[in-house]
Amino acid sequence: MPFSGKCLAISGGVGGAKLALGLSRILAPEQLTVIANTGDDFIHLGLAISPDLDTVMYTLADVDNKEVGWGQSGESWNFLEALERLGGETWFRLGDRDLATHIFRTQKYLGGSSLSEITRELCLTLGVRQKLAPMTDDKVSTVVNTRDGKTLSFQHYFVRDHCEPVVAGFEFTGIGNASMSEEFSRAITDPALEIVVICPSNPFVSVAPVLRLPGVQDSIMERNVPVVAVSPIIAGQAIKGPAAKMMRELGKPQTASAVAEYYVSEFRGLLTGFVIDSQDENQTGAIRALGLETIVTNTLMLTLQDRIDLADQVLAFTGPRGGTQ
Amino acid sequence: MPFSGKCLAISGGVGGAKLALGLSRILAPEQLTVIANTGDDFIHLGLAISPDLDTVMYTLADVDNKEVGWGQSGESWNFLEALERLGGETWFRLGDRDLATHIFRTQKYLGGSSLSEITRELCLTLGVRQKLAPMTDDKVSTVVNTRDGKTLSFQHYFVRDHCEPVVAGFEFTGIGNASMSEEFSRAITDPALEIVVICPSNPFVSVAPVLRLPGVQDSIMERNVPVVAVSPIIAGQAIKGPAAKMMRELGKPQTASAVAEYYVSEFRGLLTGFVIDSQDENQTGAIRALGLETIVTNTLMLTLQDRIDLADQVLAFTGPRGGTQ
Repeated sequence: MPFSGKCLAISGGVGGAKLALGLSRILAPEQLTVIANTGDDFIHLGLAISPDLDTVMYTLADVDNKEVGWGQSGESWNFLEALERLGGETWFRLGDRDLATHIFRTQKYLGGSSLSEITRELCLTLGVRQKLAPMTDDKVSTVVNTRDGKTLSFQHYFVRDHCEPVVAGFEFTGIGNASMSEEFSRAITDPALEIVVICPSNPFVSVAPVLRLPGVQDSIMERNVPVVAVSPIIAGQAIKGPAAKMMRELGKPQTASAVAEYYVSEFRGLLTGFVIDSQDENQTGAIRALGLETIVTNTLMLTLQDRIDLADQVLAFTGPRGGTQ
Repeated sequence: MPFSGKCLAISGGVGGAKLALGLSRILAPEQLTVIANTGDDFIHLGLAISPDLDTVMYTLADVDNKEVGWGQSGESWNFLEALERLGGETWFRLGDRDLATHIFRTQKYLGGSSLSEITRELCLTLGVRQKLAPMTDDKVSTVVNTRDGKTLSFQHYFVRDHCEPVVAGFEFTGIGNASMSEEFSRAITDPALEIVVICPSNPFVSVAPVLRLPGVQDSIMERNVPVVAVSPIIAGQAIKGPAAKMMRELGKPQTASAVAEYYVSEFRGLLTGFVIDSQDENQTGAIRALGLETIVTNTLMLTLQDRIDLADQVLAFTGPRGGTQ
């Protein structure tokens, strides 16, 4: 039976955007809401930048750069080249096309629009018909605490310093006073909601800030629908980004089941299902022992069909608190 | 005898930049100060834009777009194309490379730097060794009053509306409280100053705001050096821009001598010399009758050599209050 309810997907950047794309190819636009992490958002060169939101938006709009996984396709770098000549900061790679998004957003911000409103407007002009919204319209900033006692803003850690510093933990400045965005709250309380999907994004810095927003866990659990996470770790490696490196530095095994353990211990009672890659089949028992229903499938999304197939598998977790066993 | 003193050139955009380039090829860098009009400056898309200053800077740095006369060479337009897709304002043509200048400047502004300081920094990185400075670090905004009673900001008139509205006059908002920039004041009072050159820029909207800054005319006249203007009108036409159209709409003949008359009546006693094109030789008498020494030469600067030759002719006005007769 095809999935006929609504799906709420929680996403970081690249990996999350891939699954969101898969979901968008199966579901009718009104069935899918994607909520993106905004803990990575920052002001750079005076511009308001929302990396995860943009990655998902560009992906759903099919203007994403399929080689690097961020930014736009057919991108040029003349702005950055000129800025370099002027001695400006060029560590954050802003493409010429991508700049339009940031300048547009910054202007709208200064004009008093919320990030939700701006995102809605951007999606409309880019032809994204699914609902895509920031996790919050308040300012939440992911901060990386390093083992040598330093504090780095996320983009400094992630892009400028190439994830080289050894991490000791993370903080989400402002999260205590932040409220989930209206779209987020609406998606959770929508009577038609049938599943919450936690995309294969970084658990520590992409998913955690979304789930730690005040009220998010409780209001999702009240709905009694399956909450399914897809492991971002396959065969001990993160497909993209520093998730595996972070796990090592945090003293965790770099395994899919350690991700499941993290979710279960940090967000008690929230998750009902977990999706792992066929290469990690030997971990099924450990994950089931955590009380999670488990699906073993191909989670390495190389092609569009891979994305669609994974989305299909994820949506199989239907029915109250999960339908497969 | 070669010109060994210092030259202060007052410039608008394209035409002025051409002569400034010619002067820069004759004079040692320390002999030349170029002061650019900033009445056209405006905030667009949240960016601080200084069109005349940039045109002169790009020209002196040899990164100017020689086809269109503004912006940078080898420019691309991907930002603007993407912004258009987003429904942003695209009437002001910001190239991808050019954007770096505006973003750099805006950031420095917000950090508390003055336009003079920012210009100095930009010139340093772009390899401009001459002194180039804004007329003022205060906000002065050229406003166009139209015959049908409207008020337009200069760039709306000039770029967005393609100079189509019929002009009735101009105002320079803020000029009464503005001070000339330090570099401007230093150039005027420099004991080595031997000539002030008013470049072939638009008399009404490029030159007038510079000369109308409090104290400019008096302090120049105190120096008793030749003040030489080059006509921007050749054979009844402006080489670029709306000068001739404005003259018609203001009820003036579209002639070089009418430009001279405008300067003499508006800035009494300031000008000592006037340079006109060979095609306008028949106006020599009328201009001399205004009390101005006159040079007739080729003022149409098509080639670099034309720019150098014209600069040579202009510098021939040496000696107290002009040396040729």
